[in-house]
Amino acid sequence: MEQFKNIGIIGRLGSVQVVETLKRLKQFLLSRHLHVILEEPLAQLLPGHGLQVCNRKMMGEICDLVIVVGGDGSMLGAARALARHNVPVLGVNRGSLGFLTDIQPDNLEEQVGEVLEGKYIVESRFLLEMTIKREGEVIGRAGALNEVVLHPGKATRMIEFELFIEGQFVYSQRSDGLIVATPTGSTAYALSGGGPIMHPRLDALVLVPMFPHTLSSRPIVIDGNSELKIVIGRNNPTYPQLSCDGQVHITAAPGDTVTVHKKPYKLRLIHPLNHNYYEVCRTKLGWGNRLDS
Amino acid sequence: MEQFKNIGIIGRLGSVQVVETLKRLKQFLLSRHLHVILEEPLAQLLPGHGLQVCNRKMMGEICDLVIVVGGDGSMLGAARALARHNVPVLGVNRGSLGFLTDIQPDNLEEQVGEVLEGKYIVESRFLLEMTIKREGEVIGRAGALNEVVLHPGKATRMIEFELFIEGQFVYSQRSDGLIVATPTGSTAYALSGGGPIMHPRLDALVLVPMFPHTLSSRPIVIDGNSELKIVIGRNNPTYPQLSCDGQVHITAAPGDTVTVHKKPYKLRLIHPLNHNYYEVCRTKLGWGNRLDS
Amino acid sequence: MEQFKNIGIIGRLGSVQVVETLKRLKQFLLSRHLHVILEEPLAQLLPGHGLQVCNRKMMGEICDLVIVVGGDGSMLGAARALARHNVPVLGVNRGSLGFLTDIQPDNLEEQVGEVLEGKYIVESRFLLEMTIKREGEVIGRAGALNEVVLHPGKATRMIEFELFIEGQFVYSQRSDGLIVATPTGSTAYALSGGGPIMHPRLDALVLVPMFPHTLSSRPIVIDGNSELKIVIGRNNPTYPQLSCDGQVHITAAPGDTVTVHKKPYKLRLIHPLNHNYYEVCRTKLGWGNRLDS
Amino acid sequence: MEQFKNIGIIGRLGSVQVVETLKRLKQFLLSRHLHVILEEPLAQLLPGHGLQVCNRKMMGEICDLVIVVGGDGSMLGAARALARHNVPVLGVNRGSLGFLTDIQPDNLEEQVGEVLEGKYIVESRFLLEMTIKREGEVIGRAGALNEVVLHPGKATRMIEFELFIEGQFVYSQRSDGLIVATPTGSTAYALSGGGPIMHPRLDALVLVPMFPHTLSSRPIVIDGNSELKIVIGRNNPTYPQLSCDGQVHITAAPGDTVTVHKKPYKLRLIHPLNHNYYEVCRTKLGWGNRLDS
Repeated sequence: MEQFKNIGIIGRLGSVQVVETLKRLKQFLLSRHLHVILEEPLAQLLPGHGLQVCNRKMMGEICDLVIVVGGDGSMLGAARALARHNVPVLGVNRGSLGFLTDIQPDNLEEQVGEVLEGKYIVESRFLLEMTIKREGEVIGRAGALNEVVLHPGKATRMIEFELFIEGQFVYSQRSDGLIVATPTGSTAYALSGGGPIMHPRLDALVLVPMFPHTLSSRPIVIDGNSELKIVIGRNNPTYPQLSCDGQVHITAAPGDTVTVHKKPYKLRLIHPLNHNYYEVCRTKLGWGNRLDS
Repeated sequence: MEQFKNIGIIGRLGSVQVVETLKRLKQFLLSRHLHVILEEPLAQLLPGHGLQVCNRKMMGEICDLVIVVGGDGSMLGAARALARHNVPVLGVNRGSLGFLTDIQPDNLEEQVGEVLEGKYIVESRFLLEMTIKREGEVIGRAGALNEVVLHPGKATRMIEFELFIEGQFVYSQRSDGLIVATPTGSTAYALSGGGPIMHPRLDALVLVPMFPHTLSSRPIVIDGNSELKIVIGRNNPTYPQLSCDGQVHITAAPGDTVTVHKKPYKLRLIHPLNHNYYEVCRTKLGWGNRLDS
Repeated sequence: MEQFKNIGIIGRLGSVQVVETLKRLKQFLLSRHLHVILEEPLAQLLPGHGLQVCNRKMMGEICDLVIVVGGDGSMLGAARALARHNVPVLGVNRGSLGFLTDIQPDNLEEQVGEVLEGKYIVESRFLLEMTIKREGEVIGRAGALNEVVLHPGKATRMIEFELFIEGQFVYSQRSDGLIVATPTGSTAYALSGGGPIMHPRLDALVLVPMFPHTLSSRPIVIDGNSELKIVIGRNNPTYPQLSCDGQVHITAAPGDTVTVHKKPYKLRLIHPLNHNYYEVCRTKLGWGNRLDS
Repeated sequence: MEQFKNIGIIGRLGSVQVVETLKRLKQFLLSRHLHVILEEPLAQLLPGHGLQVCNRKMMGEICDLVIVVGGDGSMLGAARALARHNVPVLGVNRGSLGFLTDIQPDNLEEQVGEVLEGKYIVESRFLLEMTIKREGEVIGRAGALNEVVLHPGKATRMIEFELFIEGQFVYSQRSDGLIVATPTGSTAYALSGGGPIMHPRLDALVLVPMFPHTLSSRPIVIDGNSELKIVIGRNNPTYPQLSCDGQVHITAAPGDTVTVHKKPYKLRLIHPLNHNYYEVCRTKLGWGNRLDS
């Protein structure tokens, strides 16, 4: 079990509630005599904080633990930046959904305290690497914890593309696009598009067609180590986009080739000991509780 | 590469086309000086055949290869009986769908010939074992290559049950039932119910709720090594059934516990060298072919 | 506005809560000097009640208003029996869902009181008539407020049938069956099967295929005055069933012809003045409330 | 039955096949001594044609019949321009789908000939009028034969909006947008989004949520005469778009109000006598044909 001494803090900007939680968190960590490091933009939210300040990259290098205060969106951004540094990440939920941010602000001191005492679970979550090539040259690259989405950039324009998995041709499709989601992302955008829920420990990807022209197009689940290739049809009238976690957007051109595969490193996500994936599902999705016997 | 000398033949009964193909197949195998063994019920279809006859169990023990002539239904039955004997199985398609039966009758001699010459791919397909317990006693057990289905026995009666995965409570549900499908079964009944397509090499199970009462119930994909437990609610007014591959049916009672997990052995399914899973999907499901460039 | 003097009461049996509500209701109606009539089976639940007792048919003839205490299931049964008598029906909710039973038991006296004072809305809901013919002879007939379902009787057996609308051939289908639902039934079983929600005032039917073999089978919405004909394939191995509102079940045979069309009379369903269909949807289905502006 | 003497021709540009069909059509009509009028852009495709040329508006005023050569897209544009003039429209299919364009080019002379001889069916198809208001002022207005789509303009950005039907609040929703489709449009974009098929004679609209955040959001079918109001949430970070038939796009702003209702006039769509809606569905969607009896 690791000793957490240098604790980084990342937070969503623009919310009074986040600031309030940040203050409580800082207070608590200092009372434990821990070294607290703030991400740069946050420093402005806490004037007179007297703490070390650094950027995300540096944070990944010098911290033993990073705490993210915000929603799943904040966690996605932090995960993409920090995963390569192998630093564990803990989420405090100040957003609406919260599949990734377990700690409830009301129990902040108690729950963070337990993590600091070594009472936690570490879960590995893999990320995707998406690369766009034009005439063989890489013209764009980005990572994703939830999903890579091919879409028309402008909504409601159809895209034509070919899909290859492990070098095998799968299909050509005319649709509004394609979602390639990890198990982590299976409860996010892919779920809205009709994809299945995939348990976080499953080593798999799901491909969810968006508004496909043919009714027989269905979500496909494949091995997580598969290499995916999408060839954007040369006759597309528009320049489609590739979006990673809904946060990074790169424009592609007709004829471009997009590859998607696992990154070599994983996010180390920290949960309280009583964390239960299905309980989160029950709460978020309104599934039924135990029957009276 | 194995030498196939003792070739068993299993066929669907009640079809003129199957009989015709059986005759051609027998002729072809004998011309190759192979030892041909017929399954018992088939022997009556081929009067004066002069071949060895045995039951499925014996066939599993003495054959090097079993050829199944029929549809996916015939293959399912053969697979459940033969998988434990580790004998490879090849399907000749005389049915309508054919995800499991690759050989087209028109090319029978050529395609079977290539297999006999060692030109083939062997694919492992796992099976499920389903056990029903009442007050701790096993009252029923069956295997499945495609899926185990919990259903009301009589249609359109709702069942209430609890689902546990790896000992963790997932949800209670009121629905028409639950489909637990393997990747092999993901293109069968589970697909009609809105489940995703899972590549045969994926080590996963999908749970597809049938007509669930709550709209937020979605297919869940979990690791193939998971242990599933379904507890049938004590207050159910009816006696639900468990069906394996739509062919074996066992009646359960309110309060019974159903477990589902992988069998220790796998089906060895033989394909021609040019077999391509996605090509089968494209043909069966009408997916789009290569784009003109 | 009608004067309600003779008030019939129908209730679900087997529930302590229903009995309690029945007592309160009886008390309240008698305090208003109204003539209260109990349905026969209920009389046993209220020993020493001192009220007139009759069967449903008689109740339809002599009552000005019938109050149903129970869930949507109780209301369905009452509706099929009473609609032809044109007597208005009011539902007190003692079940779980309650699209048809508006009155909450806690506000029983207030809400029923307002209805008795003429403060209510009457909504017309049409019913379906389903007829099974064999070789031209009628062999079964039943009504439905929610839906008529063709299903295999035993679950997970496929049925093959042909569908005709207004005499035009629509398709042949292999599936687990077909749901023909009214707008009233569109939020019940049809919704679990992927059908759309239809506003109660819409004059339409929806046909929802159940686990169809072909992925391109989709719910079809047609004019409410259409005449439907289902011809059960002669080669079906099983005897399918026709179920009305999940409460009346009739067995058909291969080759039988099933027709479905509107009944000539409608259910007169009474709502409190503040009834709002979409509010019920929001509550039952968890739809979003007004945004903060 | 009308006499068609002045025949307008509209065609999709940029296709060799369309030009070829246009020439055959012109030849055929002139051989019948009819007055043929070309739409302006087409005139350039047929040099030396010697025919009257005019714009769409004029065409609506002076023609007895307009023939559209192209796909459903061409027909949508023509329909929006011509419907108000009450001129009947006939489609010759040179596109891929063809729910609106019945005449096959191979049978051009025969099938158009029969229409000219009065052997045809006229079907009325209603259109939608969409109006965007900002602070009470109309800032945009457009018509649609298929559907009005609210979408983020840029794909994969969520929009928050409120929906009102007939003045009643229905729900607030966070999603990628909302499709409001006519029966004509129910087999187009709305179908890809999971909406039901609605028979063209049904007087109804369907509302299909696009990638809704809550899993309980379902297509809703309402009376065709309903007045719809969508209020775009004031806190949306982006400027959503309203698209009509995927061809007309207008940008809205947070806080804008969008209304959608039927236009007062209808498209008069001409079909050959043997036209059958369900046959078109069977062909396009791969539904099953008659069973062998």
